[in-house]
Amino acid sequence: MTYNFSRRISSLAPSAIREILKAASQPGVISFAAGNPAPEAFPVEAVREISARLFADRPVDCLQYGITEGYAPLRARVRTALGEQLHCGEGFDELIITSGAQQVMDLAAKALCNEGDTVLAESPSFIGSLNTFRSYGLRLRGVPLQEGGMDLDALEALLQSERNVRFIYTIPNYQNPSGVTMPEEKRRRLYALALQYGVLILEDNPYGELRYEGEALPCIKSMDTEGIVIYAGSFSKILAPGIRVGYCLAPREIIAKMTVCKQVSDVHTPIFSQLLVDEWMKSYDVAAHIKKIRALYRAKLALMCGGLEESGAAAVLRFRRPAGGLFLWCVLPKEVDMLKFAGRTAECGVAVVPGSAFAVEASDPINAVRLNFSTPADSQLRRGVEILGEVVKAGI
Amino acid sequence: MTYNFSRRISSLAPSAIREILKAASQPGVISFAAGNPAPEAFPVEAVREISARLFADRPVDCLQYGITEGYAPLRARVRTALGEQLHCGEGFDELIITSGAQQVMDLAAKALCNEGDTVLAESPSFIGSLNTFRSYGLRLRGVPLQEGGMDLDALEALLQSERNVRFIYTIPNYQNPSGVTMPEEKRRRLYALALQYGVLILEDNPYGELRYEGEALPCIKSMDTEGIVIYAGSFSKILAPGIRVGYCLAPREIIAKMTVCKQVSDVHTPIFSQLLVDEWMKSYDVAAHIKKIRALYRAKLALMCGGLEESGAAAVLRFRRPAGGLFLWCVLPKEVDMLKFAGRTAECGVAVVPGSAFAVEASDPINAVRLNFSTPADSQLRRGVEILGEVVKAGI
Repeated sequence: MTYNFSRRISSLAPSAIREILKAASQPGVISFAAGNPAPEAFPVEAVREISARLFADRPVDCLQYGITEGYAPLRARVRTALGEQLHCGEGFDELIITSGAQQVMDLAAKALCNEGDTVLAESPSFIGSLNTFRSYGLRLRGVPLQEGGMDLDALEALLQSERNVRFIYTIPNYQNPSGVTMPEEKRRRLYALALQYGVLILEDNPYGELRYEGEALPCIKSMDTEGIVIYAGSFSKILAPGIRVGYCLAPREIIAKMTVCKQVSDVHTPIFSQLLVDEWMKSYDVAAHIKKIRALYRAKLALMCGGLEESGAAAVLRFRRPAGGLFLWCVLPKEVDMLKFAGRTAECGVAVVPGSAFAVEASDPINAVRLNFSTPADSQLRRGVEILGEVVKAGI
Repeated sequence: MTYNFSRRISSLAPSAIREILKAASQPGVISFAAGNPAPEAFPVEAVREISARLFADRPVDCLQYGITEGYAPLRARVRTALGEQLHCGEGFDELIITSGAQQVMDLAAKALCNEGDTVLAESPSFIGSLNTFRSYGLRLRGVPLQEGGMDLDALEALLQSERNVRFIYTIPNYQNPSGVTMPEEKRRRLYALALQYGVLILEDNPYGELRYEGEALPCIKSMDTEGIVIYAGSFSKILAPGIRVGYCLAPREIIAKMTVCKQVSDVHTPIFSQLLVDEWMKSYDVAAHIKKIRALYRAKLALMCGGLEESGAAAVLRFRRPAGGLFLWCVLPKEVDMLKFAGRTAECGVAVVPGSAFAVEASDPINAVRLNFSTPADSQLRRGVEILGEVVKAGI
């Protein structure tokens, strides 16, 4: 039997990162290729206590069908937290619980876009979201990312020249993969441009709480007086990714359509996951936990940056230390071939992700690799940067 | 701001059942409108023991990212069970874990169909699946359902006349909503027809284990020597729906594309849910549990059927007792208006689902209501059928 697949999927390869992760999971390989939280960042004791309590007191609630929009107390609690902490959420907004923030990208694309419509995104950008957009047959156009965030002149040129732009996808805080944080002034101008051209903004903020220096900047959603920003958040980086709990705050009409899309996709996000998050937010000191994991990741980032300098790898792996997030973006000199370099480090026992995986368009000029510092143990971080130094010294 | 939504979603209303469920959740209303397992059907003690053990012994495994295909030991275990119990699975097949069986419909439609392609389905059929197909802009054509299953002559006529038929969607066991079970001979002919016309079969078997009389019939997948059947199964009805764990057994090439679709949709099904199912299958007597819930539902079905006869409701609610599943399909006499009847019973405190919710095409001649007997407590079942009897006697 020969199978015919849909146009949208025939052109979509499995995520290069996930493929590399498979290779990186071979014994002995040190992986700087993942984006997983550190195992010690999980609030294990809290999860133990809460799960025992939930299955003792409310087992049927944990196991029965729920409603598509999500567990009502959790929705209210997250909404309140977004209002109090980030000043996000107007009267016209609504919040739904999703199966990770990835599902926000899926539901937004499905609800808002027809095949062939255009989405603008920072280039480079998160491959998971880009592939979601590709899976709906969308046309992706990249907006160059500068040290100070998205090139807004290039954005405006695209807004003028492109037809059927449905939304602008952006990760303003500690962007994946670049680590770049968009300055406040640029956020305000981005919002104004979107409003001027009648285009929505999809603001993805999975790393917002993981800030290691400086002051938090206002979310674009906090500027949204007109109902043009769809905000995606997640508990993957502050609680645990395996529970798959994210959320979306957006104008009510958009949430209503996304809810219909979710209903026919997975009915609802698992109830136990939602109850776990709700009880955690209710009964535990989330701020103290975030402070703890910030310190953990700040130290890991320092270890990686220092190690790259000491080992000599920084001569080739040129980076700016990000203000937060999970990734270090290393731009290679022109004469170094990114794919060969990544292949060589893997042979030597360190997996990194070639930057081309994050290209929005195939022609985007990217010669870089992405290193993750949250997943490896400190001993692996130390050894890994040594190996990278050896690869660099051996000449590549 | 006026929002423009995608073509696919502009025409898709929220599931009528879910809307009715919201109405049915009002205090005092007896709901025959749901499809939830009975609360007493959940293996609560097992879940308590397993969750305590998992969070004590393997907390990081429960909380960390997993791979898109699903937890490998669970995949192997389900695959083995399908082989041993249902004789399903050839060398060319592969199995993935999904976020409920609903996601199988989503991934299959996304991987296999372009907008405008045709899907054939029994009419009436499960609204959740039909709406998934609609959400991809598919053209749905209904194959009339007879007492003995799908009208295969009508199916063949459609296979001859319709262009771009991508698959035939069928629920062979205790179909939702009709309760009809397709005889073995018809399953074989359906398989032969699909093969002859080069069309895939999407076999949805959520209720397979919930048989209350007679012998189990072979799944269509067990006949699949040529790799044309995509099989969807679920733990929603035998363990718990709130954990959202389903699975798909299908030819490897199809599973590979569905996996790519899943990766960009929700990354993976929550790990704790998967570990819970795996430990349950490994450490507990699943067959004994299924035997117990079969007895529970057999008794509830008998209570509903007997009550409808005794109360006089059966004069208008004409049913055939299904051999399994969760639903009683009641065909109304021509002179009774289905929507008015459902409205009247709701006013009197019993929620039922008008059969039109399950129509494949708007013109399908359906004058029926669907009653669920698994969710209500026995006292609610007794009182509910009395009320239905009163509604019928009052004349409608």
